[in-house]
Amino acid sequence: MTDSIDASVKYVTQPGRYHPTRRPSSCFASIADALALALEDGSMKQAIVARTDVGMGQGKLAAQVAHASLSAYEKADSQLRDQWKRGGQKKVVLKGESERQLHELAAIADSDGIPNAVVRDAGHTQLEPGTVTALAVGPAADDRVDRVTGELSLF
Amino acid sequence: MTDSIDASVKYVTQPGRYHPTRRPSSCFASIADALALALEDGSMKQAIVARTDVGMGQGKLAAQVAHASLSAYEKADSQLRDQWKRGGQKKVVLKGESERQLHELAAIADSDGIPNAVVRDAGHTQLEPGTVTALAVGPAADDRVDRVTGELSLF
Repeated sequence: MTDSIDASVKYVTQPGRYHPTRRPSSCFASIADALALALEDGSMKQAIVARTDVGMGQGKLAAQVAHASLSAYEKADSQLRDQWKRGGQKKVVLKGESERQLHELAAIADSDGIPNAVVRDAGHTQLEPGTVTALAVGPAADDRVDRVTGELSLF
Repeated sequence: MTDSIDASVKYVTQPGRYHPTRRPSSCFASIADALALALEDGSMKQAIVARTDVGMGQGKLAAQVAHASLSAYEKADSQLRDQWKRGGQKKVVLKGESERQLHELAAIADSDGIPNAVVRDAGHTQLEPGTVTALAVGPAADDRVDRVTGELSLF
């Protein structure tokens, strides 16, 4: 599910200003580079991957997604956070199939320097305590997030 | 849906330390008072009210709840935010029945000085642009949030 708070404040993308041959998007020298690219391209998002194999109800799912979203957001650089919020804090909720998959995606995000957070449920209701339920990746530039979660289906 | 990230870091409530006759919970002189009570009682939450009358899918619902949650969180005092997070950032997702109801609840939260945020969907998918989808109330002490949303059903 792709979604943002207010389309009116979304950045206008400027495809003409993005030069992949000059600055390979698969290799960032630093957070400053990643931020510069995000600012240039203008489009950022956060992907939240929620497990479909643990039987969460709608409300449970929503709460876990919100946990993951906030936790990854808190790990992001403050300039990236502000940029993402000004762009409408776009979120994409995706289907994950297992705890193992979430950990693998989190490891990829880590290796790419993308803020991420894996959520374990406290287990008061519905699930066993400690059950991994969701992973949030980003906020970061769209294409960086897509390199981690681009193969997954929308929830 | 009541939920928190990690039960192991939840605060142990200390009911013996809460003296309602000395400090009426229905009347806070200041944010500092509200915070002091929350610290004393130890139990905080955020309630997110999502509309059931606009036909959101599960992923859409989760994204809107996450938007609302983050937006209200950002409006909260930093000490309240930290306290809530250390307590496991408990979230409760509740059923709302109309846009009007969400605005009425937001007005009550405003008058009680509780951080809150109403989310309008950008309308790229599923909904008309500008549709009000969710309201987050808190983080704040449990009983303060309950005075706003305590009558609603869990999602």
